[in-house]
Amino acid sequence: MRFVIKHSFKILLVTIFIWSCKNKPEQGSENLQQSGHPSIILTHEGVKAIRDHLGEIPIFDTTLKATKTQVDIEIEKGIDLPVPKDYSGGYTHETHKKNFLIAQKAGVLYQILDDEKYGNYVKEMLFGYAKLYPTLPKHPQPRSYARGKIFWQCLNDSNWLVYMSQAYDCIYNFLTEDERHTLEKDLFKPFADYISKENPQFFNRVHNHSTWGNVAVGMIALVMEDDSLLQRALYGLKDVKLAKDMKDNDGGYINQNGKVGFFANLDEPFSPDGYYTEGPYYQRYASYPFLIFAQALQNKRPELKVFQYKDSVLLKSVSALINLSDADGDFFLLNDAQKGMSYHARSLVSAVDIVYQFGGENPELLSIAEEQNMVTLDDAGLSVALAIKNGKTKSFKKASIELSDGPKGDQGAVGIIRSGNLELVYKYTAHGLSHGHYDKLSYSLFDEGNEVIQDYGLARFVNIEQKGGGNYLKENKTWAKQTIAHNTLVQNETSHFKGKYDMGSKHHSEKYLFSASKAYVQLASAKETNAYPGTELHRTMVTIKDSISPPFVLDIMRVTSETANQYDLPLYYLGQIMKTNFEYSKLSTPLVLGSKNGYQHLYKEASAVATGENIQLNWLSNNRFYTYTAATTSGDEVILGRIGANDPEYNLRNEPTLILRKKKAKNAVYVSTIESHGTYSPVSEFAVNAYGNIKVVEVVYNSEDYTAVKIEGKNDKERIFIISNQNNAQNKAHKLSINGVSFKWNGPYILTHAN
Amino acid sequence: MRFVIKHSFKILLVTIFIWSCKNKPEQGSENLQQSGHPSIILTHEGVKAIRDHLGEIPIFDTTLKATKTQVDIEIEKGIDLPVPKDYSGGYTHETHKKNFLIAQKAGVLYQILDDEKYGNYVKEMLFGYAKLYPTLPKHPQPRSYARGKIFWQCLNDSNWLVYMSQAYDCIYNFLTEDERHTLEKDLFKPFADYISKENPQFFNRVHNHSTWGNVAVGMIALVMEDDSLLQRALYGLKDVKLAKDMKDNDGGYINQNGKVGFFANLDEPFSPDGYYTEGPYYQRYASYPFLIFAQALQNKRPELKVFQYKDSVLLKSVSALINLSDADGDFFLLNDAQKGMSYHARSLVSAVDIVYQFGGENPELLSIAEEQNMVTLDDAGLSVALAIKNGKTKSFKKASIELSDGPKGDQGAVGIIRSGNLELVYKYTAHGLSHGHYDKLSYSLFDEGNEVIQDYGLARFVNIEQKGGGNYLKENKTWAKQTIAHNTLVQNETSHFKGKYDMGSKHHSEKYLFSASKAYVQLASAKETNAYPGTELHRTMVTIKDSISPPFVLDIMRVTSETANQYDLPLYYLGQIMKTNFEYSKLSTPLVLGSKNGYQHLYKEASAVATGENIQLNWLSNNRFYTYTAATTSGDEVILGRIGANDPEYNLRNEPTLILRKKKAKNAVYVSTIESHGTYSPVSEFAVNAYGNIKVVEVVYNSEDYTAVKIEGKNDKERIFIISNQNNAQNKAHKLSINGVSFKWNGPYILTHAN
Repeated sequence: MRFVIKHSFKILLVTIFIWSCKNKPEQGSENLQQSGHPSIILTHEGVKAIRDHLGEIPIFDTTLKATKTQVDIEIEKGIDLPVPKDYSGGYTHETHKKNFLIAQKAGVLYQILDDEKYGNYVKEMLFGYAKLYPTLPKHPQPRSYARGKIFWQCLNDSNWLVYMSQAYDCIYNFLTEDERHTLEKDLFKPFADYISKENPQFFNRVHNHSTWGNVAVGMIALVMEDDSLLQRALYGLKDVKLAKDMKDNDGGYINQNGKVGFFANLDEPFSPDGYYTEGPYYQRYASYPFLIFAQALQNKRPELKVFQYKDSVLLKSVSALINLSDADGDFFLLNDAQKGMSYHARSLVSAVDIVYQFGGENPELLSIAEEQNMVTLDDAGLSVALAIKNGKTKSFKKASIELSDGPKGDQGAVGIIRSGNLELVYKYTAHGLSHGHYDKLSYSLFDEGNEVIQDYGLARFVNIEQKGGGNYLKENKTWAKQTIAHNTLVQNETSHFKGKYDMGSKHHSEKYLFSASKAYVQLASAKETNAYPGTELHRTMVTIKDSISPPFVLDIMRVTSETANQYDLPLYYLGQIMKTNFEYSKLSTPLVLGSKNGYQHLYKEASAVATGENIQLNWLSNNRFYTYTAATTSGDEVILGRIGANDPEYNLRNEPTLILRKKKAKNAVYVSTIESHGTYSPVSEFAVNAYGNIKVVEVVYNSEDYTAVKIEGKNDKERIFIISNQNNAQNKAHKLSINGVSFKWNGPYILTHAN
Repeated sequence: MRFVIKHSFKILLVTIFIWSCKNKPEQGSENLQQSGHPSIILTHEGVKAIRDHLGEIPIFDTTLKATKTQVDIEIEKGIDLPVPKDYSGGYTHETHKKNFLIAQKAGVLYQILDDEKYGNYVKEMLFGYAKLYPTLPKHPQPRSYARGKIFWQCLNDSNWLVYMSQAYDCIYNFLTEDERHTLEKDLFKPFADYISKENPQFFNRVHNHSTWGNVAVGMIALVMEDDSLLQRALYGLKDVKLAKDMKDNDGGYINQNGKVGFFANLDEPFSPDGYYTEGPYYQRYASYPFLIFAQALQNKRPELKVFQYKDSVLLKSVSALINLSDADGDFFLLNDAQKGMSYHARSLVSAVDIVYQFGGENPELLSIAEEQNMVTLDDAGLSVALAIKNGKTKSFKKASIELSDGPKGDQGAVGIIRSGNLELVYKYTAHGLSHGHYDKLSYSLFDEGNEVIQDYGLARFVNIEQKGGGNYLKENKTWAKQTIAHNTLVQNETSHFKGKYDMGSKHHSEKYLFSASKAYVQLASAKETNAYPGTELHRTMVTIKDSISPPFVLDIMRVTSETANQYDLPLYYLGQIMKTNFEYSKLSTPLVLGSKNGYQHLYKEASAVATGENIQLNWLSNNRFYTYTAATTSGDEVILGRIGANDPEYNLRNEPTLILRKKKAKNAVYVSTIESHGTYSPVSEFAVNAYGNIKVVEVVYNSEDYTAVKIEGKNDKERIFIISNQNNAQNKAHKLSINGVSFKWNGPYILTHAN
């Protein structure tokens, strides 16, 4: 074989030159004729088809060109295998990370361009690792519950193997049998054993970490055709007993129910709707191993029917994930999540392309691929690129949708309501494993891709070494996970479930109602009875879009308790206050709002005492005007606050909040509206509709059975919204008299059109 | 004539319909055959040429279509002439403002589309105003030194007349002589008299207000062919004596030197380089009346040669203004200026088109017009649109440039240095009339269109009624104008010139050096001796772009004083702290930094005492990493602060600063570097070059004659920068020995390339 390669070398050089001039390389050179490799992601047939189409499909050619440029630069620089030392963001971490990303690409280029330069590069790098790896002790950084060897966590070592398996598959036939034997003996097998057998607390879990671990072992198993390793990947390590109360360094349980392996990781965290319980940020991260391995299994073990598994949950998960993004494709913030992550991430390019090819060629996915302006350089990417070229694209219609949580879909849900330019994300899920926040019935609001009422996200600067090695900061626990950091109710300045993972992870909120069938009124309603024992929270979030005003949000948070408590409901508006309709007194210097449970990170800047009239806050954000209108009870306290207290290292963002505090009450109803009503242009200096349209919002009725709210517009139009609090049956007939006016309707709610 | 119009009405209807189908209207209908009108902006020949090209030139057709859509919507809504009542941002203000903007457009549409609908609309509106205007008292809002009738200031009334004059010119021949007589007698003449004769304190000034006033009177004079009014516009009101110490409501003097009229407003505020002393934000505002009137004069009184006036200063001013914008076209912040104003403003569309047509058809202006994606619907816009269509566009090359200030160019300057993606704006100008700030030798820094070291701008939300009627807020005086709000030196917590306009407006900084001929080292250097009597400030700002690092800024602020003082040098970095190389102690709650001169608006959040080693601040802004490295003297205080104290109505932005304080010193040298060195992607989560390249910056020599700074890179490269402090002659030979090493060079500075 070596002879053949050498023989074809001059031809190849000419070929590459021609390709650079935008022609296709010659086809049929020998490595296509070998059987068996590449076969996990790229396939023989795929490589042949790709070569047939080179220079013909813009999006594929652009990606290929960019990839070639990137890899060529790295080849020029030479291979660097520093002795592992740093956390993420540090030099050795980032270098080894770059290595596996580039090696995978170089492997692909070797196949597509049939250029030994790339084969040699991958080969040299793998042999470098084969020499280095056996010399490595555990990584010197101690923070992880499962330290890797090349990286500080087994997680990153698994990333390495997922990518390197593909690189190896691509150059498999470029190597001699002896060379392959050396690589497998000195590198791949011990590597796979280390992240599995030697770290069962990492491998035998249901968690995105283990998904990477399982897939890493599974991918190399498929390349090496090692069935025993594959069984380990699919079904976990056998005969390993881990203590039930063992936790990882993020505070999450290692394994409480004994479920292990790749299929368990498909069973457990995904709901039947494809929602991933850790939230979209981690789904994005896990989607790469899930889908790349599914693609590999489909190619090598089609009899496993992985894409049909659990009613095609992998296919559904990608649609769910796209629906969990705003108008710009940025993922909604649920649980630990860094802002700015979007479906432009490389893992989503893979996900979209794979699901297009293996999931029935949904033409709406092509519009996402067009936005990504990139495809995977493999069979899946080719199918997407060809379909786009052939004009098959349809626009992806993001819907108002409820995505259930829990393996069986019975552990609450996320309700996403889209109305006009508004996207409301209402969370009534299970806890979300170790990345969960204590934020039952919280929400966030987006306006044409801009976050207006924010979820803070995580307290971490991923891969920025300056900030705690790029890892979770202590403020993630003391601030970002706490209830007061979210747009939901806090009782007695204590977080839900007392901020305890043991309790939080046992419970979930209960869906009560989701309705998106009428454009003029959409709603999601849910209850939470476990966050504060003895207290029930029932929140109903509505969007209304009719002649009273442009689309706006109506928020009804109903609290009933056995005891009298202090209740705080924060509003994390982003932007600058333009005007309030109430007088507030600003403190000469801010005070720290509290001493624990996240309150220690909030400054109180100003406060007011409500008179029982509505309070209104009008603010400007991203050159748009918003107004919050809330009903109050006389004596309620309004606190204008800001994040940033007890933040010795400037780890937090100094953003504002308004907290509506009820000082001592058993039961309470918080009712408010949020309007997006106007715009400002700093170029034309025109302010259009700077004031909201809603004059008054008022609770006109509240009992165990019904809550009714009146909304009065400045145009003197009036609406009554009534919800049945105990009976959510669709056909149940209701009758209620409010202030002498009688209302009759069927189903759990009504919005009147009085005028 | 009326008969002819009625006769042609059916033909017109057909014509319009055809035009809607993207064909051209029939040509040669009667209003083109009238002599004399339109003639000030649109001309007979222009209208004919426009009609000839309709449907052929994309940028013109797009603008026309958008204009027609906008005007049609307003015609549909009907005319609204509310009784004047509000400040800017309020209903009556915004309605009358919309009226004159739409009327001008409707007049143009009447001419271009030859459709009576538009003529009638303008006619009806003008007669409405002719009925309303005589009934109006002074505007009820009392804040202005020159209250208008339709608006709260004569300024806005003047805006009205500048636009309405054009509308009137367009429909002049559509009206009967009687109708014209009525309009001129009841509306235009009294209107022009009110803003001039009855408000000499407004009309007889050198100020952007009076420019509008002069031009308003001049425009209607040209349409009515009233030479006496024209003389008033060009040369001011005669025989009016105003007290020399009279001030406007912004605190600016009305008129100290007795210069008046349009030409005086060209003479005084513009420097020979075309820099407008109030700064680019107000130049943008004034550029519309300056240029529209110049166009009108050129058309009607070409013998005045207005475009050649003062060595073609109007033409130069537009190039200067474009050079005063960042990579996105946003104007640099100098004096009172609202962020986000850019050359996309409609006044700049006019300016660019007019200067293209009347200023020698500079093809670089076409690239700006393409970015604007809009042209004026007149002869000038047509010439631009045709040139773009004919492929004449060249890219506008923004340069490193020094723009002198003062009528004769001898009152300091603005130095703009562009190096790589960095744009450094260094201000050593005169005061800037009533919109000036007390910020001698201040600077701001932009990186690829993002402001990194900010100038705060103004404390005002222009036209946002919620915020003080859209007018200047009191914080503009107490904060935004004060020295501590800027990136320049404050002595003893007192603003330059004690914050007194009388003193500030008498002085200007002195240019010392500007050099942009070598790409690897560019610099601007200036001195200020009047801001603090007895103290000299000499600041040299350098950009260095060579192998030591990517382009970076070197800042040398040298202070020499007869007395010992406290010195503060703030750095208004935008973004979040990633890391410092010094320990600081954060206060449990912020303290107010001082009691007056702007200090009362700053919170002290943390502080450190310098050891004499360099301090480094590494921060993240817009996903880019920056590092500030500053030499210190042992005992210097480092204050980490934030804007926002004593801000009872949330009028300020809560943005950070670092203040380097020298507690008691006669002389001091502040030396620092600012690097833009890395990027972060929240999608790939890669941090690239998160740390700066500069290890040490050090003052290695400082005497009356020379200051020398050593910069040492982490790559162990070293540079010495030496500046001659007293002799700025280009050919002077210098010799200096520093620590036993001898340096010889010619000219006022040297940057060594030691390795």
